[in-house]
Amino acid sequence: MESVSLPTLRRLPKYLMLLQSLEQQRVIYVSTTLIAHELGIEAIQVRKDLEVTGVVGKPKVGFVVSDLIQGIIRFLNWDNRREAFLIGVGALGSAILGYQGFREFGLDIIAGFDNDPRKIGKTIHGIEILDIVKLGNLIERMKVRLAVLTVPAAFAPEIAGIMIFSGIKAIWNFAPCHIKAREGVVIENVSLSQSLGVLTHRLSKMEQNYSEVI
Amino acid sequence: MESVSLPTLRRLPKYLMLLQSLEQQRVIYVSTTLIAHELGIEAIQVRKDLEVTGVVGKPKVGFVVSDLIQGIIRFLNWDNRREAFLIGVGALGSAILGYQGFREFGLDIIAGFDNDPRKIGKTIHGIEILDIVKLGNLIERMKVRLAVLTVPAAFAPEIAGIMIFSGIKAIWNFAPCHIKAREGVVIENVSLSQSLGVLTHRLSKMEQNYSEVI
Repeated sequence: MESVSLPTLRRLPKYLMLLQSLEQQRVIYVSTTLIAHELGIEAIQVRKDLEVTGVVGKPKVGFVVSDLIQGIIRFLNWDNRREAFLIGVGALGSAILGYQGFREFGLDIIAGFDNDPRKIGKTIHGIEILDIVKLGNLIERMKVRLAVLTVPAAFAPEIAGIMIFSGIKAIWNFAPCHIKAREGVVIENVSLSQSLGVLTHRLSKMEQNYSEVI
Repeated sequence: MESVSLPTLRRLPKYLMLLQSLEQQRVIYVSTTLIAHELGIEAIQVRKDLEVTGVVGKPKVGFVVSDLIQGIIRFLNWDNRREAFLIGVGALGSAILGYQGFREFGLDIIAGFDNDPRKIGKTIHGIEILDIVKLGNLIERMKVRLAVLTVPAAFAPEIAGIMIFSGIKAIWNFAPCHIKAREGVVIENVSLSQSLGVLTHRLSKMEQNYSEVI
């Protein structure tokens, strides 16, 4: 089985969003040329990316929108609910617990964990918060494989270690620290500070250039 | 003034995090070799990236940690507070309003906007929520240049249009829809679904391979 490139994987949800909005507008067929134009991606790239889904277009008319939607969802495995634990129920962790949107992507957070006695035993957005000391044991017993990590940076490596030891296979890491990939474990680091850094630097650079022109 | 590459810009906050944790451990000097090793980046790349800050290392001992921290913060313009509006006070928007961490990066959200009458006039985490119909006017009058966009995808392009027309120069877009870059406007799209897609696909692939082995 051929491995799919990271850029292709990242573009698939983009195609999905566009296709879903086309479906809402009751569009039946779509060409790669249109997708390419809408998203500012080369048509040949779109064609190559969509090949991985196994969905085949029809000559002259293109793809059936709903087929392509199903194909991408299947490929990303978003048609299967997947149980996950969330660790670190601070501002961001609470927000993620309350955000129903991720369920569309198959993410089913079944419990939160924290070390704060004021949070343990409480229910946030219908999800129970458990004591973090139980984390390793519950990962083993409940065979949870996916974790959302929203703890402060200082705690992240240690907790990642405990989780991986207990059987976690995929970590969605929001902690502002890079967790290194390991054999047999998938880690996706989301760094909001990196993204904001790009923005603030470019904005200030643009303003400098502007004042130089004046 | 030479333009800095996007990958370099994205790595700078990573260096910063590492350096801040070294500073907490009272480390005074750091070599590019150590940074490279800790972050799994080539040493020659680290050296090139850090050059943009203008901070110069000392032969044999390397960089003074605190100098490098200041250099990166200055370069990313995180030493200047920057006023911003947040648009869309849902689950994610509220979380961002409540998250003090972004202040470290110079982001100072001074008002939130929403179209929900139950939210307008309220204060969330000390920040007032205003009626979205006032958005364009207030951008002009208060000369706000930075916006955090956390509305549903369907509203994002229209609101982005209004904001840019009124004078917004940089948009940090969390809406699950791609907003195209325009002349004189910086847009940074944060797509959580793209990130989650990488994770769920790879996890399911790994599990398939595992069961094939058995």
